[in-house]
Amino acid sequence: MITGKSLIGNSFIEDKDSEIFYTINALDESILPQKYFTASISQVDKAAELADKAFSVFSLKSTKERAKFLIKIISEINKIKKEIIVQYKLESGFPEGRAEIEFNRTINQINTFVNILNEGSYVKPIIKLEDENGPDLRKMFKPIGPIAVFGASNFPLAFSTAGGDTISALAAGCPVVLKGHPFHAGTSELVSQAVNSAVLKSELPEGVFSHLQGKSHRVGEQLVSNKNIKGVGFTGSYLGGKSLYDISQKRMDPIPVFAEMGSSNPIVVLPDKLKEDENLAEQISNSILLGTGQFCTNPGLIFLSSDSDNFLEQVKKIFSNSETSSMVHPSIKENYINKIKEHENLGVKIYRSKKNNSLASVGVITSENFLKNDFFKEEVFGPYSLIIKCKSVNQITEIINFLPGQLTGTILGSSNDIINNRNLVDVLEKKVGRLLFKGVPTGVSVTQSMCHGGPFPASTDSRFTSVGTDSIYRWLRPISYQNCPQDLLPDALKDLNPLDIKQIKTKN
Amino acid sequence: MITGKSLIGNSFIEDKDSEIFYTINALDESILPQKYFTASISQVDKAAELADKAFSVFSLKSTKERAKFLIKIISEINKIKKEIIVQYKLESGFPEGRAEIEFNRTINQINTFVNILNEGSYVKPIIKLEDENGPDLRKMFKPIGPIAVFGASNFPLAFSTAGGDTISALAAGCPVVLKGHPFHAGTSELVSQAVNSAVLKSELPEGVFSHLQGKSHRVGEQLVSNKNIKGVGFTGSYLGGKSLYDISQKRMDPIPVFAEMGSSNPIVVLPDKLKEDENLAEQISNSILLGTGQFCTNPGLIFLSSDSDNFLEQVKKIFSNSETSSMVHPSIKENYINKIKEHENLGVKIYRSKKNNSLASVGVITSENFLKNDFFKEEVFGPYSLIIKCKSVNQITEIINFLPGQLTGTILGSSNDIINNRNLVDVLEKKVGRLLFKGVPTGVSVTQSMCHGGPFPASTDSRFTSVGTDSIYRWLRPISYQNCPQDLLPDALKDLNPLDIKQIKTKN
Repeated sequence: MITGKSLIGNSFIEDKDSEIFYTINALDESILPQKYFTASISQVDKAAELADKAFSVFSLKSTKERAKFLIKIISEINKIKKEIIVQYKLESGFPEGRAEIEFNRTINQINTFVNILNEGSYVKPIIKLEDENGPDLRKMFKPIGPIAVFGASNFPLAFSTAGGDTISALAAGCPVVLKGHPFHAGTSELVSQAVNSAVLKSELPEGVFSHLQGKSHRVGEQLVSNKNIKGVGFTGSYLGGKSLYDISQKRMDPIPVFAEMGSSNPIVVLPDKLKEDENLAEQISNSILLGTGQFCTNPGLIFLSSDSDNFLEQVKKIFSNSETSSMVHPSIKENYINKIKEHENLGVKIYRSKKNNSLASVGVITSENFLKNDFFKEEVFGPYSLIIKCKSVNQITEIINFLPGQLTGTILGSSNDIINNRNLVDVLEKKVGRLLFKGVPTGVSVTQSMCHGGPFPASTDSRFTSVGTDSIYRWLRPISYQNCPQDLLPDALKDLNPLDIKQIKTKN
Repeated sequence: MITGKSLIGNSFIEDKDSEIFYTINALDESILPQKYFTASISQVDKAAELADKAFSVFSLKSTKERAKFLIKIISEINKIKKEIIVQYKLESGFPEGRAEIEFNRTINQINTFVNILNEGSYVKPIIKLEDENGPDLRKMFKPIGPIAVFGASNFPLAFSTAGGDTISALAAGCPVVLKGHPFHAGTSELVSQAVNSAVLKSELPEGVFSHLQGKSHRVGEQLVSNKNIKGVGFTGSYLGGKSLYDISQKRMDPIPVFAEMGSSNPIVVLPDKLKEDENLAEQISNSILLGTGQFCTNPGLIFLSSDSDNFLEQVKKIFSNSETSSMVHPSIKENYINKIKEHENLGVKIYRSKKNNSLASVGVITSENFLKNDFFKEEVFGPYSLIIKCKSVNQITEIINFLPGQLTGTILGSSNDIINNRNLVDVLEKKVGRLLFKGVPTGVSVTQSMCHGGPFPASTDSRFTSVGTDSIYRWLRPISYQNCPQDLLPDALKDLNPLDIKQIKTKN
């Protein structure tokens, strides 16, 4: 049952003077009846304070104990799966299939962290024994402290309450204060109830997890400013991410922020491919339309190198008949529609779907006009892509060189075509976190080999990923122990290696 | 021969309208005759632009080629060792022995990076082949771009021109624009000549290394603001580091900055140790006085837990007879003397050396008075330490809990004493990058197991170290290659593993 209250430590608490807000049925845009209470100033501070207190105990739990806690989170989420899915569909407008996929992804993600915790070597223990060159010195990764995580509007489960940021932080040994996304406050609360049950059943200290409700920016801003918070995870818009980032950097003690702030995910189609691949228009169109275009890796810019009439005709045809679902919130839809209108005003030829209520659109522009306005480089969040007709691959390379940082970049071409355009590959590589040579950028596989991040403004720190188990390193820092008695060393660094993990022995 | 000019790419260039400055003989405080020309606005921009251009070529060089380049740097530095040492001693006032030690450390440091480049696995290749769960996805670390490095006043060689920051960045594949420290502009230029010879002899592109002279803050500020610079390495004062950090965060695209900004390196002496270790006073005093107290890890706060009269008497005696050398610059000495005067004005009992010109001093204060003023928590750079007489280990633990982040923390006691004060260990661990249980914090061994960094303000990002080969990760970011043709993959990720390095094969 949803209460509308924030979870502070282990208690759902309502503040009498709270500002009230509601979520919206994304499909019919009606206001849902449940009241939500914005977390008060004292609630935000209390959550951060409890997180700090919990850190001292939680950070000392063994990796195996933390693995058990994550398994408990899975079972508690599974217990209320039906209720979660109903609320998820209401608040996001996503269909049953997507709900199922995202729910499973969320569970699978947690399991990947269970696995690395049970294995245990992710702390990278390095041991140098005392010798003529220096003392006994042992290093490993340890958690940095309580983390503020922001739910993402486009992933109410997999990148929200028990999503990648939260789970990687908890796996690291960092308590989490979660700011629920106001678009899916109910879904977020349900998941927070499950996490809280797991905290209680695992007999972990109060404060390992708190959940703050709020529509006002004040809640997030206050949280990121709070001295007890030592890191931030965010997935969302440039405006939201950058403003939290700026707040974090103005603190007395700046803290690390990993904000994934979207991307236009350029696709470059080389001449051979354009001529020869008959399925290309469909493949790219499907990627643009997937989930009503609400993926971080949605391709927003398509660069065509040469004779592209046939491809363009196919794309126009596909789009004119495309149905889309609603978007996750009316305000997102409004933004989307306005941005396309702005493109149109700036001279882009827009092709809209002829189907009722469909949001599918595609724009076409020449490279010459594209270069006239930086606005075209900005992400248009939704089922839209801007196709840029270029004069040559060299011209595309020049344009790519002036693009901002991206999550992904895709080069589609025959092997020969790609190898002959090595310079394009090198230029695009500098701009992205993931470089594709086949397929489409949507569909982010959750593996250790994934990099989901990229140069600013795709993310605020290109040295980390927010997808895959390596995302845990955002919340860890190395500590060296010099001449530490065996009894006091963390198990990972002990001579007897009681955890049976991979210890690196070094002489220098 | 020293020219006084900045090295822009491969050319030492003088700007006619340059502001001129001089270095000082640190021993007798006389002005040295060599003129130095502050890098002009256009020179700073040119250096950064050349670095950006060089990056495209340099970042594609194989690790073996970069290893050869570093070996060439060693041989070029060795060629002019005599000249370097003479200038080093003049500008820093450090004696022959220290010069020799720091010179060798600089060379050895470069060699550690030669070794990891020749071995090659530091790029951490992870390979996931295409399967039913997803595409062929391979990840490795790649360089982030041109790095601005600032020479450190207290390490004219090992943390300056060809020091840890520069060499780790070059090893990573990042060009470096070095801002020489104005206190040792001559030493810095000589080393930059050696690096430049290595660039030329290795036939690397112009811009892999530039060297800017300047006393004005404008040079560094302009450099950190320059769009072509993608990261910053700094070792120095809080004021200097924080101001560069703030500039880097106000850019359109904030960039990572690793600033190591000093530390008070608290030492806690537990009751048993205080009673039983007769050499303790001498050991700690020597650490305070080493190199005239000009080490980042110099112990600045000594917490004594119980009956400490005997220890204090010994320390006073040692300090009253201690000789020190000069400090690296008259302005540093002046700061040092003023800070001690301020301690005295705030009620600290100061014991100064009775020897002529000696700067050795020690202060004694009660815990009660220590808590009255936050100023006591600030670093006093020089051969001084503040001894705090506390009532109990519990009180020390409480005080430590309110200290800012530190590079190191030391707990000296019998094994029993330490184990009985587990809470003190846990509280101190949260504050530091390196935790010692024996010896003193000075003497930073350059090994992979070293963490030289720590929570803010010890450093601006506790997730990295600036000493040891792991410091290279400050300048690397992961990139994933999805379905990349074998011919285009970096060697580290190829199926045939031509580099014969450790590739991690993963299924998820």
